[in-house]
Amino acid sequence: MSDLKNDIQRLEASTMTDMVESRLREYLKRKSFVPGDALPKEQELADALGVSRNVVREALSRLRMLGMIESRKKRGMVLTQPDILGSLERVLDPLILGKNTLRDIFELRLVLEMGLADLIYLRKTSEDIAALESIVAQEVNKQQKPFRVEHEIAFHGKLYQMTGNDTYMRFQKMLLPVFEYVLDYEIQVNGQAEVGKVTHHDLVEILRTGDAEDFRRGMKAHLKPHFDRLKA
Amino acid sequence: MSDLKNDIQRLEASTMTDMVESRLREYLKRKSFVPGDALPKEQELADALGVSRNVVREALSRLRMLGMIESRKKRGMVLTQPDILGSLERVLDPLILGKNTLRDIFELRLVLEMGLADLIYLRKTSEDIAALESIVAQEVNKQQKPFRVEHEIAFHGKLYQMTGNDTYMRFQKMLLPVFEYVLDYEIQVNGQAEVGKVTHHDLVEILRTGDAEDFRRGMKAHLKPHFDRLKA
Repeated sequence: MSDLKNDIQRLEASTMTDMVESRLREYLKRKSFVPGDALPKEQELADALGVSRNVVREALSRLRMLGMIESRKKRGMVLTQPDILGSLERVLDPLILGKNTLRDIFELRLVLEMGLADLIYLRKTSEDIAALESIVAQEVNKQQKPFRVEHEIAFHGKLYQMTGNDTYMRFQKMLLPVFEYVLDYEIQVNGQAEVGKVTHHDLVEILRTGDAEDFRRGMKAHLKPHFDRLKA
Repeated sequence: MSDLKNDIQRLEASTMTDMVESRLREYLKRKSFVPGDALPKEQELADALGVSRNVVREALSRLRMLGMIESRKKRGMVLTQPDILGSLERVLDPLILGKNTLRDIFELRLVLEMGLADLIYLRKTSEDIAALESIVAQEVNKQQKPFRVEHEIAFHGKLYQMTGNDTYMRFQKMLLPVFEYVLDYEIQVNGQAEVGKVTHHDLVEILRTGDAEDFRRGMKAHLKPHFDRLKA
């Protein structure tokens, strides 16, 4: 009898929570819940699902973390508009990501950078250009090396903002630490790469006088050292 | 005395779980946990944090959903390499996303599409081109309207795969349903848009004979109707 534990697989609480979470999602979808709609009470859900209230609470806690539900005074739990990047932010830690994922994210940042020209040309203002110019002026004044993390973040961060797309901006900013991490590692192994021939200053000049295609070509030249790493 | 519930804010279990989740993250980071390392037992964590075991279990359940920890026989809970897009997938439901987020995602798909040329040119093979050609041939044989969702998915999905970047591929595929949802809505309101002058067939031709810059220019012309929507 003492071997029973080895012979029959225990139904883990975590498995139950997975199932309850998935049932809840199905239910919300099938009943066409929209943000603002109130969910049934914990105890009702537990009774309907035939599980303990603790398991229901765990599953609801997951949806709460994803920003899909929240508790409101008097109304109980209601469906909300989720913060789509909130949970991504929680797992983008270079130390726990695998090598392939780190490389993927490094490339993804480059893809996003190469694709932003059209949105920028749709929405750029003269104030934006002035702001970029003052960022570039600070780089020169500080007499620092051409490649500095804080310059990169200030300059490219402003470009992200100019897309007028909050999701794009947040996503790119989230990818930066991973990008820097991979870059640092590469530099340790292969040595510092050349700097792209097109500088931040040149890119601002293109934004003034060129079109979206010129800007894309300039960005490609600016990022060339990173693309060269991918070939290696 | 009966007004006390109105005068003092109840410490919700959900708030406790938020705090415990955040403490656990801090702890894992400060102690430099890496994938494979075993976590302390639930009860030890509960004792150290001074909270009930249920709250600890809820917080751990969230980390489990994010793919950051998993249960292993005999070793208990261990840190794992999270699936960075798993939780994003859970919330990308057009029906519960806000209008701004839907627009952001529509644009993000275009940005990712415009940025993929460099990765494709780094990795494309003659087998890839042959596969694209057979997809295009099917489009023509079926004598269907030039814009069909299944053609779009087959053709662009193959392009995503050609980047050799799994994260990019999964991310783009996840965005597609939201993209289609916004497109359907726009078509209902503003009528069907023109089709881009550069077709899938033309894009394959460019992949054969042109360079990355030609391809980007072709893709821009292919996606022009979508970019025109953004101007409106």
